[in-house]
Amino acid sequence: MTVEFICVGTELLLGNIVNTNAAYLSEKCAGLGLSCYFQTVVGDNAQRLAMVLKTAMERSDIVILSGGLGPTEDDLTKEVAAEVCGRKLLMHESSRKSIARFFEERGMVPTENNWKQAMMPEDAVILENHNGTAPGAIIETETARVILLPGPPNELYPLFEESVEPYLRGLTPQVICSQTVKICGLGESKVETMVKDLIDGQTNPTIATYAKTGEVHIRVTAAAEDTKAANKCIKPMVKELKARFGNDIYTTEEDVTLEKAVTDLLLANDLSLTCAESCTGGLLSGRLVNVPGVSEVYKSGYITYSNKAKRKLLGVKKATLQKYGAVSAQVAEEMAKGAALFAKTDVSVAVTGIAGPDGGTEEKPVGLVYIACCVKGKTTVKKYQFGGNRSKVRESAVSAALSLMRGCMLEYFSKVTFGKKD
Amino acid sequence: MTVEFICVGTELLLGNIVNTNAAYLSEKCAGLGLSCYFQTVVGDNAQRLAMVLKTAMERSDIVILSGGLGPTEDDLTKEVAAEVCGRKLLMHESSRKSIARFFEERGMVPTENNWKQAMMPEDAVILENHNGTAPGAIIETETARVILLPGPPNELYPLFEESVEPYLRGLTPQVICSQTVKICGLGESKVETMVKDLIDGQTNPTIATYAKTGEVHIRVTAAAEDTKAANKCIKPMVKELKARFGNDIYTTEEDVTLEKAVTDLLLANDLSLTCAESCTGGLLSGRLVNVPGVSEVYKSGYITYSNKAKRKLLGVKKATLQKYGAVSAQVAEEMAKGAALFAKTDVSVAVTGIAGPDGGTEEKPVGLVYIACCVKGKTTVKKYQFGGNRSKVRESAVSAALSLMRGCMLEYFSKVTFGKKD
Repeated sequence: MTVEFICVGTELLLGNIVNTNAAYLSEKCAGLGLSCYFQTVVGDNAQRLAMVLKTAMERSDIVILSGGLGPTEDDLTKEVAAEVCGRKLLMHESSRKSIARFFEERGMVPTENNWKQAMMPEDAVILENHNGTAPGAIIETETARVILLPGPPNELYPLFEESVEPYLRGLTPQVICSQTVKICGLGESKVETMVKDLIDGQTNPTIATYAKTGEVHIRVTAAAEDTKAANKCIKPMVKELKARFGNDIYTTEEDVTLEKAVTDLLLANDLSLTCAESCTGGLLSGRLVNVPGVSEVYKSGYITYSNKAKRKLLGVKKATLQKYGAVSAQVAEEMAKGAALFAKTDVSVAVTGIAGPDGGTEEKPVGLVYIACCVKGKTTVKKYQFGGNRSKVRESAVSAALSLMRGCMLEYFSKVTFGKKD
Repeated sequence: MTVEFICVGTELLLGNIVNTNAAYLSEKCAGLGLSCYFQTVVGDNAQRLAMVLKTAMERSDIVILSGGLGPTEDDLTKEVAAEVCGRKLLMHESSRKSIARFFEERGMVPTENNWKQAMMPEDAVILENHNGTAPGAIIETETARVILLPGPPNELYPLFEESVEPYLRGLTPQVICSQTVKICGLGESKVETMVKDLIDGQTNPTIATYAKTGEVHIRVTAAAEDTKAANKCIKPMVKELKARFGNDIYTTEEDVTLEKAVTDLLLANDLSLTCAESCTGGLLSGRLVNVPGVSEVYKSGYITYSNKAKRKLLGVKKATLQKYGAVSAQVAEEMAKGAALFAKTDVSVAVTGIAGPDGGTEEKPVGLVYIACCVKGKTTVKKYQFGGNRSKVRESAVSAALSLMRGCMLEYFSKVTFGKKD
């Protein structure tokens, strides 16, 4: 069964934003065993969108459109899709109520054009959107299934996972199952080299690698007559990957993020945590706090951007700052130790580095970051050199800090040597 | 003059990588005044690529293909393009020498299939690639200009800038310029309603709205014979938008983000800042710290996720926490006041709320957030009700906090009434 994507938006055609939706949808549909041969981007223009949609419906079984469901004049994906599929747009009562409720809850008054979002194609399956006012829709025609989704990723992703994924799963005669093996602390080319023989020889299951910031995910996908058979096909491959990557695998569960894996380790071992952040300036804590239930282990954290703050809030010694500079192994260590002491926690992590664009020197270039992690009094400090712009350096530092915390905790528990890659 | 892009690669169709080339090419071509109406992604498949290329050549003046110029069997973009354009592939002597030199310089021996990269379409303009072995090419046909570029961004970008940009500049009679008016604190449909008459009556310049979390951007775009004339065309529209939106516009500059606008206000007025974050848990600080130079005004911040941390680090009274609860206007106010006092700053902002998924009650539902901002002793507290999942609530709270800070500072400076929308 084939699928193709049409991403609608002038922003994409002008290059204002990168088309992450296409990558997301591609990855998801590949995981469902659907073959994707085409992706198209088109602007908010009725004639061109209709042309592209007709072509897509002729050559693919499923066409997923994203974007252009908003309340403004520009937004015409739904109108065009209804026209091409020969459907009227009718007021969808339950969507109208959802929109009214959405505004009421926010103490806001909807404007006239907001109601346009509740006008849905006749006989379509309506997909409720819990993160915005634009519902999604599935229109089943004789030639193809047309699926309309909102453009903003924070609406598209949950809507896809809640409603579209189960729908697509129901269409395919074979059951496709996949499992993701998530690895932290190793680069993509290292991981690829380590699985090259498996990729070269693959039939069923297939494996594919996906590079993320500070992580690499390996997806193992199998097709079979039922879930049980597919999972049976996946199992030996996951076992093989576990044998190859060992502790570098932080999870094999779909909904476990690196920050959740770290939080789960803390929770399972009844350990409390604090963070002391300089160049990441709150991003690390911000990511950890996105894990529901983290409040059990994470109570307080410090953003110590200036030297004075490092001294005052964390007790970093003036002499250490003067001798080694704020971006140094010594300062990272004192930050982590101070944070654990003042916040009275079992585990602490400290990040100090040069995120750029200024502040780099030959000796300490932009991208240099020291991360220290202290587990029950034992402190590990690591030096990193990240590439990319300020934002990328900071994101890389956050991922590295999570990897290091995980590594240090595992080492503490099991006394096995960890971090052998250095 | 119209352009469209065809990005070739199975890794794009599988979602292994994000299509940053399309965004790069789009932005570049928009800046050259070319209109892009379509982007397509297709795999390394001769039949499908030929189909897509033929369609593109029929509807656009210029077709830029990226990817599929490598030495392997899979790479067939050049072969397909030559076929579709009715050209033979001939050994291009200078490209052959470049390839030989490339390998020689690296102490490597080319394999047989490397010479395939020197086979170029007859009568094409050959574009030398200084960063790889695949030369680019321009094939001029009667219906369209077909431009072949390598896929890796580190080869594509310099090749485009060195050879393609000057070529395209020579083709286009008009220049396109645009300016973005960025608004915070108003919803997209509200903004849309306020500019509906302008959108309805638009010819040159055109305007379009873009929704971001907590922000709306209005892009004003004009086409003219030169940059000066285009900018002259944009100016009155920007003036009109300024008259309509006033202080809700935080910038009209392309590279200024909301956090940068806030930081610039602090810097310009020599004010220092601290943040006290509960539900956002560092995200607000993290976003502010992404602004280069923020260290001048932002020295330290507090993540006070637990009640104890709120008391200990910020001096929030136990009685206040007991009487009103951690998510209350009173606690937000004490957090902001305490943060300013302890960090000795002119400005402080505090966020406390229920990000979910658990912890909501009928009285205090998930998404309820209080934000307090204190400017030189004067504290403003606002109540918000955000929708969406945990992550969305937190991102919305960060944007709202930045908007509130900006509003409070402007009010403090000018004594004009701000926040009239409440």
